[in-house]
Amino acid sequence: CERVCVFGTGDIGRSLGLRLIQAGYSVIFGSRQPQTCNFLPNGAQVLGHVEAAQTAHLIFVAVQREHYDFLVPLANQLEGKVLVDLSNNLKKNQYPEANAEYLQSLVPGAEVVKGFNTLSAWTLQNGPSDANRQVYICGDRLEAKQEVLAVATRMGFSALDQGSLSKSRDLEDFPLQLFPLWRLPMRIATGLTAALFFYLLIRDILHAYITQSKDISFRVMVSLANKVCPIVSLVMLALCYLPGVLASFLQLYRGTKYRPFPDWLDRWMLCRKQLGLLALGFAFLHVLYTVIMPIRYHVRFWATERTVALIRQNRTNEFSTSAAWHSDSYLSFGILGFGLYVLLGITSLPSVSNALSWREFSFVQSKLGHLTLLLCTIHTYLYGGIRFLNASMYKWYSPPGYMLSLVVPTVVLLLKLFLLTPCVDRTISRIRQGWE
Amino acid sequence: CERVCVFGTGDIGRSLGLRLIQAGYSVIFGSRQPQTCNFLPNGAQVLGHVEAAQTAHLIFVAVQREHYDFLVPLANQLEGKVLVDLSNNLKKNQYPEANAEYLQSLVPGAEVVKGFNTLSAWTLQNGPSDANRQVYICGDRLEAKQEVLAVATRMGFSALDQGSLSKSRDLEDFPLQLFPLWRLPMRIATGLTAALFFYLLIRDILHAYITQSKDISFRVMVSLANKVCPIVSLVMLALCYLPGVLASFLQLYRGTKYRPFPDWLDRWMLCRKQLGLLALGFAFLHVLYTVIMPIRYHVRFWATERTVALIRQNRTNEFSTSAAWHSDSYLSFGILGFGLYVLLGITSLPSVSNALSWREFSFVQSKLGHLTLLLCTIHTYLYGGIRFLNASMYKWYSPPGYMLSLVVPTVVLLLKLFLLTPCVDRTISRIRQGWE
Amino acid sequence: CERVCVFGTGDIGRSLGLRLIQAGYSVIFGSRQPQTCNFLPNGAQVLGHVEAAQTAHLIFVAVQREHYDFLVPLANQLEGKVLVDLSNNLKKNQYPEANAEYLQSLVPGAEVVKGFNTLSAWTLQNGPSDANRQVYICGDRLEAKQEVLAVATRMGFSALDQGSLSKSRDLEDFPLQLFPLWRLPMRIATGLTAALFFYLLIRDILHAYITQSKDISFRVMVSLANKVCPIVSLVMLALCYLPGVLASFLQLYRGTKYRPFPDWLDRWMLCRKQLGLLALGFAFLHVLYTVIMPIRYHVRFWATERTVALIRQNRTNEFSTSAAWHSDSYLSFGILGFGLYVLLGITSLPSVSNALSWREFSFVQSKLGHLTLLLCTIHTYLYGGIRFLNASMYKWYSPPGYMLSLVVPTVVLLLKLFLLTPCVDRTISRIRQGWE
Ligand SMILES: Cc1cc2nc3c(=O)[nH]c(=O)nc-3n(C[C@H](O)[C@H](O)[C@H](O)COP(=O)(O)OP(=O)(O)OC[C@H]3O[C@@H](n4cnc5c(N)ncnc54)[C@H](O)[C@@H]3O)c2cc1C
Ligand SMILES: Cc1cc2nc3c(=O)[nH]c(=O)nc-3n(C[C@H](O)[C@H](O)[C@H](O)COP(=O)(O)OP(=O)(O)OC[C@H]3O[C@@H](n4cnc5c(N)ncnc54)[C@H](O)[C@@H]3O)c2cc1C
Ligand SMILES: Cc1cc2nc3c(=O)[nH]c(=O)nc-3n(C[C@H](O)[C@H](O)[C@H](O)COP(=O)(O)OP(=O)(O)OC[C@H]3O[C@@H](n4cnc5c(N)ncnc54)[C@H](O)[C@@H]3O)c2cc1C
Ligand SMILES: NC(=O)c1ccc[n+]([C@@H]2O[C@H](COP(=O)([O-])OP(=O)(O)OC[C@H]3O[C@@H](n4cnc5c(N)ncnc54)[C@H](OP(=O)(O)O)[C@@H]3O)[C@@H](O)[C@H]2O)c1
Ligand SMILES: NC(=O)c1ccc[n+]([C@@H]2O[C@H](COP(=O)([O-])OP(=O)(O)OC[C@H]3O[C@@H](n4cnc5c(N)ncnc54)[C@H](OP(=O)(O)O)[C@@H]3O)[C@@H](O)[C@H]2O)c1
Ligand SMILES: NC(=O)c1ccc[n+]([C@@H]2O[C@H](COP(=O)([O-])OP(=O)(O)OC[C@H]3O[C@@H](n4cnc5c(N)ncnc54)[C@H](OP(=O)(O)O)[C@@H]3O)[C@@H](O)[C@H]2O)c1
Ligand SMILES: CCCCCCCCCCCCCCCC(=O)OC[C@H](COP(=O)(O)O)OC(=O)CCCCCCCCCCCCCCC
Ligand SMILES: CCCCCCCCCCCCCCCC(=O)OC[C@H](COP(=O)(O)O)OC(=O)CCCCCCCCCCCCCCC
Ligand SMILES: CCCCCCCCCCCCCCCC(=O)OC[C@H](COP(=O)(O)O)OC(=O)CCCCCCCCCCCCCCC
Ligand code: HEM
Ligand code: HEM
Ligand code: HEM
Repeated sequence: CERVCVFGTGDIGRSLGLRLIQAGYSVIFGSRQPQTCNFLPNGAQVLGHVEAAQTAHLIFVAVQREHYDFLVPLANQLEGKVLVDLSNNLKKNQYPEANAEYLQSLVPGAEVVKGFNTLSAWTLQNGPSDANRQVYICGDRLEAKQEVLAVATRMGFSALDQGSLSKSRDLEDFPLQLFPLWRLPMRIATGLTAALFFYLLIRDILHAYITQSKDISFRVMVSLANKVCPIVSLVMLALCYLPGVLASFLQLYRGTKYRPFPDWLDRWMLCRKQLGLLALGFAFLHVLYTVIMPIRYHVRFWATERTVALIRQNRTNEFSTSAAWHSDSYLSFGILGFGLYVLLGITSLPSVSNALSWREFSFVQSKLGHLTLLLCTIHTYLYGGIRFLNASMYKWYSPPGYMLSLVVPTVVLLLKLFLLTPCVDRTISRIRQGWE
Repeated sequence: CERVCVFGTGDIGRSLGLRLIQAGYSVIFGSRQPQTCNFLPNGAQVLGHVEAAQTAHLIFVAVQREHYDFLVPLANQLEGKVLVDLSNNLKKNQYPEANAEYLQSLVPGAEVVKGFNTLSAWTLQNGPSDANRQVYICGDRLEAKQEVLAVATRMGFSALDQGSLSKSRDLEDFPLQLFPLWRLPMRIATGLTAALFFYLLIRDILHAYITQSKDISFRVMVSLANKVCPIVSLVMLALCYLPGVLASFLQLYRGTKYRPFPDWLDRWMLCRKQLGLLALGFAFLHVLYTVIMPIRYHVRFWATERTVALIRQNRTNEFSTSAAWHSDSYLSFGILGFGLYVLLGITSLPSVSNALSWREFSFVQSKLGHLTLLLCTIHTYLYGGIRFLNASMYKWYSPPGYMLSLVVPTVVLLLKLFLLTPCVDRTISRIRQGWE
Repeated sequence: CERVCVFGTGDIGRSLGLRLIQAGYSVIFGSRQPQTCNFLPNGAQVLGHVEAAQTAHLIFVAVQREHYDFLVPLANQLEGKVLVDLSNNLKKNQYPEANAEYLQSLVPGAEVVKGFNTLSAWTLQNGPSDANRQVYICGDRLEAKQEVLAVATRMGFSALDQGSLSKSRDLEDFPLQLFPLWRLPMRIATGLTAALFFYLLIRDILHAYITQSKDISFRVMVSLANKVCPIVSLVMLALCYLPGVLASFLQLYRGTKYRPFPDWLDRWMLCRKQLGLLALGFAFLHVLYTVIMPIRYHVRFWATERTVALIRQNRTNEFSTSAAWHSDSYLSFGILGFGLYVLLGITSLPSVSNALSWREFSFVQSKLGHLTLLLCTIHTYLYGGIRFLNASMYKWYSPPGYMLSLVVPTVVLLLKLFLLTPCVDRTISRIRQGWE
């Protein structure tokens, strides 16, 4: 039975030790106070650092970088050993050199391998759940890396070699990253939301205040939010399908798929998932804001007022079949569009998308995705109806929000329609099959 | 360090090469133009096909089947080598023989193994995410397969041997399949929807048009949809629990569990998950259609009309406690039923159901599932109320839709009740424990 | 090619055999009636128990414990073999000793390893889906366990050694457990729900009946439910963030993180996920109950009554901007709070939380989680408004439900605010970095 050593009996040291024992290794901890250590996993041994180092060839260093100097006096014992550096920092570029490189400089005779730092003590202990499987390692000596790879594999991880020790900075930055792919979509969403908010604030609320001295500022909370949200959602949904269309046009123009896309297009394509999910979030808010409309004081008040006015003025209300058609159809298209939207969201859950074959995934995301865009666009066109003919809609010569929201989706759908015509479609498929 | 060779520097070739390098292999690409290859993973070497073939025993062929003839001149170099065929086709039965068999016929001296074709270049590159882990291989020689199995395992995949090379057609069809298990439930859903749609169209809309010349065609968009959706949902939910009940009766009748079910029952049992999820989709639409009701022009119009009529005719409206009970209770049962419905949906997400033990999964799906069916059925009974006594409900002698929807659920619930009686339950458990 | 033997050709025997063959093993079944076995996987051989036992060193015993006595006559053939006990029981403590220990006592010459019993025949067969990967084993001899570990690894499982054979009882209890972590949160939820239900029943319904003889019992179904659900949800959400705050205070007081928390705090911390998800369920019901309000007979009746009264008494209704602000803002905060609530729910799906780094997960769960609590608390404060000044709210001197619901959240938010002040925050971070 093979032996490995773990320096440090803290959170990660203990959790790692437990998993190593469960994978069939015999584990020796190295600690400053070997006699007073508690909560160690059953079956582990604890020794001082010096004695522990002598028992095994592979040593996990589960100690903060700040305390690495305790290793300097051990340099002799560590000669030729493989040291696995698990450490993380609290922020990026906290130290001039990567922790692993610092460790290597302290103990030049040892072979330092960076790795396992992306795991957390918590996930390590919770074996039962389907925890993070992938670990990354890097290091300068192949043999050392393969020894670590073998341990990782036996522990049930799938380890990926990322190259030489100079990559350790990247590995150390990994647990510090905060949604890198969501940044661009987030900025787009924030920008669009802010721009629309001010546009509609001026057009709908300030306009009424200035021209009619009416204070309808309370509308910010729901009415305005329920314009901003669906418009942002629709525009972002369209932005999600625009790069695919642009890419097709580029391939059509170039006549080959073997030339890379421009950088901006590549980055755009890579964050479509995040764009789409944010758009779903906004659509979700739109739906919630819509369904609570009848509960609002403002809506209930005006419903009553309208009835009262009808009676006091002794008018009769004529049922308009076309108004009924209009209201029912835009609602119905919205509902179907939202249903498919949620479906797109569900299939982008990692566990669901992994269960789908490539063809199934792209059927849902590409075919049903364009259908979703179509349904939502029809919903908005129908909602607008023939109101755009009405001059009073153009307060201060500015078009209403929903018209702005229709520009990008309409362009995307028209371009897509062109790409779907049989002869263009055939050319594209041939290019994608590798013909030049 | 072991060496493997990859022919073809396209999408899949590059992605596979990257993963092989990360798993610790040294990779040599074979290309038509070794000097002009771009975007190759760091650390890989590129040679001509002939030179590349000589460096390794295992060769991945990442080239379209259409170009396999370039291998014919290499037959000598490939003698005794293991060739892994990764290729897919664009549609089923595109070629008379499977790609792998064609490859074998071109290079009879090599040992062809089919495999890895279910992966996509995309998932291969995105190591970090919990990508598809399972790969399938098949081939005629055991040693060749075990070599490939070993590579797959070291790359972090779990490889399943599917048998001899004659299975390669199945493996090639796998990425082309489009929701095979969803087909039968989809057909049931479409059939039911269409039948109900026409039934209700005639009964509710055509009837009014013919007998009273009233044009209420606008109701198709929401009112009709909001009858079709819940009815289809309820019937499909019941169809989901019917086969389990039938199976129990069959086992009871036969007195043993060691005889297989008839084929139709087996196929029905296998698509219950899909039946249930489609039913959830319809229920979701029902809920959306229901909550937007107060926003509809038609509903708002008649609400106003009713108030106006009340005042003009100087009637007083009497509050009916029983009507309040009635409306509140059917809504409440619907909400609870829908809550549990969503819970069933959540527990069928692969990552959630994998985290559950067998007993937990069947507690939710079987016990809470039947409870869901019960709540939804009560919801519908209560909604119907005593209206069925009213002759005017039977326009053209046809029962209203909700009555039709109650038949199957009622039967399923009664049969289940019978199975739950202590003595029947005991007999069934004993049979399931293997007694005969 | 290695050989393994499987005793028993039932559900689990066949499924296991299939997977073993796919992993490249050659499988020999041992059966009572080797000639009449059906449905065995392709490529497997079937022999009598005696002959089968002789072919392999590793034997899986896929037979119910009740029939283990058939192994006694085979004791000679089983001498020195590794027997894997797969069996489960129907309930806990069904037998005085664990099945594996019983097996060991029947065949003392063999080396019994307990394991694989957490898998189900179903998941084994459904290789394609991302089935349960983790298996647990235990046993007294290291070599035997490592042989089983190796088989498990080659089959694509990640096996965890849990120690000696005396642990087998724990392994056997595992598939029998029914949501152990959900038990405490469930009890809290049930207790809170019951207490609130009776409190509000007395305060709202009995009070009206006794003091005014008004029968408003129908309100139990929706109105009451729509008070109980949000209050329970808000309190449980706060209970979810309380232990984190308490833990910080404890660490602050002790000045070190190296002393364990009291037991009750530890258990509370471990079930926060379940607390939070239950709270989400109640919030979901609250939202459903809220959005169907305008459909209720009771609500529609009183809306009409109010209009009628207005006209008959010839009053005019004054639009109150502050009432509009009030209603719109509490609704808007509720919607945003619920949106974030759903986001917390989505990130706790195993497949999503596995895709997040530690920092990302705690950004969402901790930062956005506290924000959710804040939004929901503001929602409730705004809903209450200045009503608490009104003496008529205190029927029978008891405060309305929503006031009770605000106590815990307010306390948690204030304590958290204190922890966020720069100097306290700095001290805590230093303690968590290991300073003493
Ligand atoms: C709610 C919502 C959720 C979305 N979720 C996702 C998502 O999870 N993943 C995603 O890529 N886009 C997602 N999108 C964005 C969009 O639906 C897809 O990118 C869609 O495939 C684009 O179609 P296309 O025809 O324009 O692209 P095309 O260029 O025709 O092709 C499909 C593209 O999808 C990518 N892709 C294909 N298969 C997979 C796979 N198995 N896993 C990951 N990516 C793959 C490839 O980069 C390919 O370029 C989502 C959109 C919405 C609204
Ligand atoms: C919204 C919704 C979602 C559903 N999702 C699923 C689903 O994910 N899987 C499913 O089988 N049915 C699913 N169903 C269908 C149905 O709920 C179940 O099949 C249910 O178990 C039938 O109960 P029973 O008592 O009639 O069947 P029984 O015959 O008593 O037994 C349970 C059956 O479930 C299957 N099963 C048991 N454990 C698992 C497991 N871990 N993974 C997969 N299948 C297992 C077995 O085939 C077994 O025959 C779903 C239904 C709805 C409405
Ligand atoms: C809808 C909803 C869903 C929730 N889902 C979860 C959930 O899935 N997991 C959860 O722990 N809590 C969950 N909670 C509870 C709560 O949001 C978290 O526990 C939150 O992290 C507490 O924050 P804190 O600042 O009080 O705790 P802190 O003590 O500051 O810290 C975070 C705690 O979270 C735990 N944790 C950290 N990372 C992970 C991880 N990758 N996987 C699992 N646990 C980790 C650790 O025990 C740590 O103590 C959920 C709450 C709600 C309302
Ligand atoms: N916790 C995680 O989830 C996690 C995940 C990935 C990476 N990491 C990294 O792993 C390292 C340790 O993290 P941790 O959470 O386990 O920390 P920890 O709980 O504070 O434990 C650190 C251990 O290091 C030892 N130590 C402390 N001061 C020392 C000194 N001056 N000299 C020698 N040894 C000393 C102590 O063990 P003895 O008392 O036995 O000597 C202590 O238990 C950090 O670099 C961290 O970034 C942690
Ligand atoms: N892409 C995927 O996600 C994926 C997934 C599974 C399976 N597959 C299968 O893998 C195969 C390759 O797919 P791909 O997407 O990688 O295609 P690709 O990007 O078009 O690349 C094919 C490569 O094959 C080589 N090639 C092209 N014509 C050739 C010829 N006449 N003679 C010799 N070599 C030629 C080229 O490499 P050189 O220029 O270097 O010679 C080219 O880069 C296909 O059969 C496909 O079905 C692909
Ligand atoms: N089914 C599962 O998903 C699952 C999962 C984990 C663990 N388990 C455990 O595995 C064991 C078997 O379960 P199972 O579902 O496979 O049961 P099963 O379908 O009833 O099969 C049991 C097999 O044992 C053999 N057998 C029955 N009576 C016997 C006797 N008197 N003497 C010798 N052999 C006899 C029979 O095979 P021959 O006719 O060929 O002799 C029979 O096919 C149980 O202990 C169960 O707890 C089952
Ligand atoms: C117009 C359409 C309306 C659609 C509405 C969506 C509702 C849900 C329909 C589920 C469809 C799932 C398709 C999965 C694709 C697939 O093949 O997926 C295939 C996988 C394959 O799994 P296996 O291979 O393990 O069988 O199946 C799944 O992953 C099941 C996914 C279940 C998803 C349920 C999630 C419910 C969450 C609640 C959401 C909505 C309710 C909101 C309340 C207001
Ligand atoms: C009457 C009941 C009403 C129920 C309403 C459903 C709301 C959600 C309740 C979550 C319950 C999860 C049970 C999981 C079972 C389990 O044990 O699951 C166990 C697993 C175990 O995970 P670990 O082992 O990793 O801890 O936990 C989970 O998987 C958590 C699942 C989280 C699901 C949240 C999904 C939210 C999606 C949004 C849905 C609805 C909102 C719709 C908006 C209109
Ligand atoms: C105020 C905010 C409102 C938010 C409303 C929530 C709506 C959904 C927004 C999705 C956000 C997902 C964040 C995931 C975090 C992450 O980084 O997650 C990162 C992972 C990473 O995956 P990869 O690494 O594989 O790219 O991505 C995901 O897992 C995607 C999760 C998709 C979730 C969609 C679920 C939809 C289910 C339906 C629910 C609601 C509708 C109810 C109907 C009434
Ligand atoms: C359940 C589904 C839906 C319902 C019931 C619904 C309902 C409505 C309603 C009632 C309006 C008018 C709002 C107002 O009067 O201010 C509206 C507007 C709008 N909806 Fe939807 N909708 C749904 C889904 C969607 C979806 C998925 C999108 C796509 C992103 C969308 C995009 C829009 C847009 C752009 C507007 C115009 C906003 C404006 O400028 O006023 N809707 N919807
Ligand atoms: C939030 C949950 C639910 C609410 C609020 C709700 C509400 C309603 C309402 C208002 C109606 C009357 C519709 C009309 O007047 O046309 C109705 C009918 C009906 N509901 Fe639900 N429901 C819910 C969930 C469900 C579920 C989960 C099912 C099960 C599948 C279901 C099945 C039905 C059926 C079969 C009808 C009769 C349809 C007809 O013929 O008119 N409901 N529901
Ligand atoms: C879509 C989101 C939401 C909407 C539209 C909403 C709406 C409402 C409404 C209309 C009420 C008054 C109910 C009544 O008159 O009886 C209410 C009360 C309340 N809500 Fe929400 N809410 C939402 C989300 C939430 C969330 C996420 C919570 C947090 C758990 C919450 C907690 C409460 C509480 C505690 C009350 C007071 C209950 C009482 O005693 O009457 N709400 N909400």
